[in-house]
Amino acid sequence: MTVKYNLDSVKVERAAREWLVERGVQTEQIAKLVLDAQKEYYPALTADECTAAVNRVLSKREVQNAILLGIQIDRFAEKGQLDSPLQELIENDEKLFGCDEVLALSIVNVYGSIGFTNYGYLDKLKPGILAKLNDRTDNECHTFLDDLVGAVAASACSYIAHRQQAKAEQERSGLPGAGETVGASLTGADGAPAD
Amino acid sequence: MTVKYNLDSVKVERAAREWLVERGVQTEQIAKLVLDAQKEYYPALTADECTAAVNRVLSKREVQNAILLGIQIDRFAEKGQLDSPLQELIENDEKLFGCDEVLALSIVNVYGSIGFTNYGYLDKLKPGILAKLNDRTDNECHTFLDDLVGAVAASACSYIAHRQQAKAEQERSGLPGAGETVGASLTGADGAPAD
Amino acid sequence: MTVKYNLDSVKVERAAREWLVERGVQTEQIAKLVLDAQKEYYPALTADECTAAVNRVLSKREVQNAILLGIQIDRFAEKGQLDSPLQELIENDEKLFGCDEVLALSIVNVYGSIGFTNYGYLDKLKPGILAKLNDRTDNECHTFLDDLVGAVAASACSYIAHRQQAKAEQERSGLPGAGETVGASLTGADGAPAD
Amino acid sequence: MTVKYNLDSVKVERAAREWLVERGVQTEQIAKLVLDAQKEYYPALTADECTAAVNRVLSKREVQNAILLGIQIDRFAEKGQLDSPLQELIENDEKLFGCDEVLALSIVNVYGSIGFTNYGYLDKLKPGILAKLNDRTDNECHTFLDDLVGAVAASACSYIAHRQQAKAEQERSGLPGAGETVGASLTGADGAPAD
Repeated sequence: MTVKYNLDSVKVERAAREWLVERGVQTEQIAKLVLDAQKEYYPALTADECTAAVNRVLSKREVQNAILLGIQIDRFAEKGQLDSPLQELIENDEKLFGCDEVLALSIVNVYGSIGFTNYGYLDKLKPGILAKLNDRTDNECHTFLDDLVGAVAASACSYIAHRQQAKAEQERSGLPGAGETVGASLTGADGAPAD
Repeated sequence: MTVKYNLDSVKVERAAREWLVERGVQTEQIAKLVLDAQKEYYPALTADECTAAVNRVLSKREVQNAILLGIQIDRFAEKGQLDSPLQELIENDEKLFGCDEVLALSIVNVYGSIGFTNYGYLDKLKPGILAKLNDRTDNECHTFLDDLVGAVAASACSYIAHRQQAKAEQERSGLPGAGETVGASLTGADGAPAD
Repeated sequence: MTVKYNLDSVKVERAAREWLVERGVQTEQIAKLVLDAQKEYYPALTADECTAAVNRVLSKREVQNAILLGIQIDRFAEKGQLDSPLQELIENDEKLFGCDEVLALSIVNVYGSIGFTNYGYLDKLKPGILAKLNDRTDNECHTFLDDLVGAVAASACSYIAHRQQAKAEQERSGLPGAGETVGASLTGADGAPAD
Repeated sequence: MTVKYNLDSVKVERAAREWLVERGVQTEQIAKLVLDAQKEYYPALTADECTAAVNRVLSKREVQNAILLGIQIDRFAEKGQLDSPLQELIENDEKLFGCDEVLALSIVNVYGSIGFTNYGYLDKLKPGILAKLNDRTDNECHTFLDDLVGAVAASACSYIAHRQQAKAEQERSGLPGAGETVGASLTGADGAPAD
């Protein structure tokens, strides 16, 4: 007798978060990328706000799906278990293989097109945790993960840009409350594409 | 003296909604597309739930931006005010001109990749309001609008799929409350990519 | 001593084509989807022209990459070798898992946005070979493959639309030669996004 | 009596190229962005090869469509002819308005996902002609154009990466001929997604 399949969303989210940690990526390290990218625009931005933004992005199913799939492929590549020539393409992070960028863009898209630029910039410069993921001195393979982490950071930057706008509009309008609270109101101030 | 520019999100959302109506598209007509597309999967789905889903999609800034831009271009095309050869391309809804689909996809992306299929299907079959927008017997031009409306409907379908999943998981887990309320909780049940 | 890695494009293309056949998909079956979708627009279109269009699409590296990755994942899923909960998501072709559509869109994009509609339509109706891939009576898993095949067919439809336009313009202009030949000329008639 | 509409591809390509020049962008300036971005990877790359790559990208219809539409919108914005609030959004290059990035990505996609990173990087750093387009001291508006030019440059970078790979593989295999010639052969070496 087969057990009927039922999607368990809690399990999926938990797995996505755990797999990130197992592969060496802490939420705080992604938040650091966000803070460094955004502090020139929002000097008062805190590390906690960035962590909250990253957590928000990680709560989206589309993001979780991409993380699970990308890490799974990296794991197989690391163990040499992919079939040739895919194994060589991924193991060597072949420049002309772009499926990792494709998956990453599906994360960025959830928070709208304004994240494209931040994604590309992070992916080119590889600051912080991204540099560590690209350091190929050990036998780890993070062909997909580095792009996914960059995409999560870029999406969190987009989220923050939307939140900061909502806050600024509230302050101008003299409305009470701030941030999250008003974001969920019906004032229309919450124009964030994905929240 | 120039007035400093400040983004007014309420004004942007209001304009997007008003421009839709001015161009002949009611929220309920989009909701009808959603209901017809989804009722085979969720027989208990109501017109009100579909209208709420469409309103949710229309509250996203990325969606509003695309609607404003697309309708603006249609207006210019209708008056013959675009420069040649762009005027002819858009006025005739040239098959090899795909910028309308590009803008539409930016709407679909906000609710994740599961909406691609519904978008393509609606865009091919042109049911309901989409047929009316494509009826070229008057002098109206809706080259962009029909794709945008199809994309809003497809995104609302995706939203509903995520909400229905959240509801089903709640019922299985025996948790109190339903729908919107639990969606905002920390149970992880709200995996919708864009809510 | 490790052997220096060098991308071997011939090997990659050959693998993509062989893997398709191994998974039960013949080029002619994809061409059939194309012919059925396009014959209402181009009554003189032949099966051979459709096969040539599919071969053209399959010659693109971006397409080959997506095919190799998607089939690899299907293989692992079929053997139950993915980690939970990814295994369940893919094995059951979970409706809220959209990474297969994401990869498919990366194929469609190569021939431009005009292919979105055809992709969605094929993915909804599942004609021909797509129905067979979705027939889950055996123990095969084609969660990614059916979307990839639909995307290759949709791209071939776009290619044909561009070629037919080039031919029509030649005939109007009274230029000698046709099809492929003029497509490569400098007359500007070859506006196809990806050829 | 109305004249039947017929797409004239030569006219479309010519217009896209002329509109770029009218808005202050020379092919050579885009080629310069490409050379600066790629010379670290291919030290022997010449300015002429980069110009040829840019011309190749500009020959694609999807690219031409996006250029025509984007420049048209910039023109209207410059003259203050868009309706409010779209006029303010575009005139001020509003950070949360991403339709310009959406159109730009449709250009990048034609040459595959490997161009995303280069696009984002160029869009962030704004070197060369991009800086000039963003210099808002005159009354020009280039909200769309700067993103489009960055996208054309990023696509040309992708094209070059594919061409260089084809050349390297030929040299290893000891085959006669090089570059363009073999790219069009049936050896399978021409894996470029869009050529």
